[in-house]
Amino acid sequence: MNVARYQLVVEYDGTDFHGWQAQEGQRTVEGCLREALAQLSPNGCQTHGASRTDRGVHALGQRVLVELDRVRPASELLSALQALTPPDVGVLRCEVAAADFHPRFSALEKRYLYQIRTGQQPPTFARQNRWWIREPLDVDAMNEGAALLVGEHDFAGLRNRSKDEPEDTVRVVRAAEWRQIGHELFFQVIGEGFLYKMVRNCVGTLVEVGKGQRTAQSLQQVLSTGERQLAGLTAPPHGLYLMEVRYPGEPPCALQAQPLGF
Amino acid sequence: MNVARYQLVVEYDGTDFHGWQAQEGQRTVEGCLREALAQLSPNGCQTHGASRTDRGVHALGQRVLVELDRVRPASELLSALQALTPPDVGVLRCEVAAADFHPRFSALEKRYLYQIRTGQQPPTFARQNRWWIREPLDVDAMNEGAALLVGEHDFAGLRNRSKDEPEDTVRVVRAAEWRQIGHELFFQVIGEGFLYKMVRNCVGTLVEVGKGQRTAQSLQQVLSTGERQLAGLTAPPHGLYLMEVRYPGEPPCALQAQPLGF
Repeated sequence: MNVARYQLVVEYDGTDFHGWQAQEGQRTVEGCLREALAQLSPNGCQTHGASRTDRGVHALGQRVLVELDRVRPASELLSALQALTPPDVGVLRCEVAAADFHPRFSALEKRYLYQIRTGQQPPTFARQNRWWIREPLDVDAMNEGAALLVGEHDFAGLRNRSKDEPEDTVRVVRAAEWRQIGHELFFQVIGEGFLYKMVRNCVGTLVEVGKGQRTAQSLQQVLSTGERQLAGLTAPPHGLYLMEVRYPGEPPCALQAQPLGF
Repeated sequence: MNVARYQLVVEYDGTDFHGWQAQEGQRTVEGCLREALAQLSPNGCQTHGASRTDRGVHALGQRVLVELDRVRPASELLSALQALTPPDVGVLRCEVAAADFHPRFSALEKRYLYQIRTGQQPPTFARQNRWWIREPLDVDAMNEGAALLVGEHDFAGLRNRSKDEPEDTVRVVRAAEWRQIGHELFFQVIGEGFLYKMVRNCVGTLVEVGKGQRTAQSLQQVLSTGERQLAGLTAPPHGLYLMEVRYPGEPPCALQAQPLGF
């Protein structure tokens, strides 16, 4: 079979999806993409995402390798996918993929963003796009804790176990920072790779620092012992966004100054 | 019966409501408020809103008069209502109402905002909070048309008929303006009062101006003849927000420079 390979940039509102990965009987983002592709490539298609985001997690820059049974202009495939995907999925870009491109193994780094609304008043709009925390949070202490995550560490204490867990739990985090604008508080982290639920465990643990339930220094102990039970709760999925994935030849991921605006 | 009167500032995401006004068998904002109040005031309560927003229309500053069968501190009523209302309703403020306060008849002016997303890419997030228009819009021409609405005019040609329509269709519009920031385009209008669907008809007609389907000057003809069929289509409800209502002693409504952020 003559295989045509494309790479996509995809965004999605994770609210009504059972995560990224295609699963029988569940509404997933990959499943919706495959249904759209099946209309374009009746003899079969393959999809591979850069990140298998969990149920409820959003993405603005998921990267996807698509393999079709026949060649089409990338611009035509883009228009077709934009028309055939549901409203909570946006196909933003489509290009012919390089022969050696793999969305997971070629990725150099990723940026995630986590949105929190603080204060007495829960959000009335876009409630599935942020985590609401009523208590005041000490953002300086949270940033002190975040700074301890930067660098090469064994993040075993900040991951959840999964069926296909990697043997090597050492990862490099290049930047980790909280910013606050009014009642909007958001965390951004850039790293070469992340373990299962690592970002949400970092956020959950740092929120406990912000509430004064633990010290920033306690992160040090989580990292040095690798004990998951020393870390905090997993933050809920609906505040998390996969923002971008960087591949060779692309500019480095960079922290952004503003919250998302929804 | 000793009646205690309070006035509330209420916001709501109109997506899952059948509008403001309480109706048997429908989920409405006023109905949800009354259910919450019934738990606090078992012998009966009354509610009156400043604006009977339609199904799908949102509000950030709806004003409500509440009458209860017993006196409570306003701060206590606020906390109770915040706890008892559903997540798509936010009770932002609660104060004892002046004896002569009526949310509709005491209102001096109102400000509405209408959000549009333009461009090839439909919004993936907050899709029920804006109208998506794919075609490019001529914002200068839309502002030329909007300027013709400002002043005292007979707006009969820009209202829809309703069961309780007023005899007098003359209204004063104090400001009407479009602003664009990237793909976000928003219209704001401040006036002493508005007829049924008047804002959505203004928006729908001005969008036709923006698409080049009619001239800005055609608004003049709509106003002078009062012929509804000369105006454009009614814009969909999910882009519209009741932003604020002004009462005696409060600062004038003012246009804001930024879109809503969701």
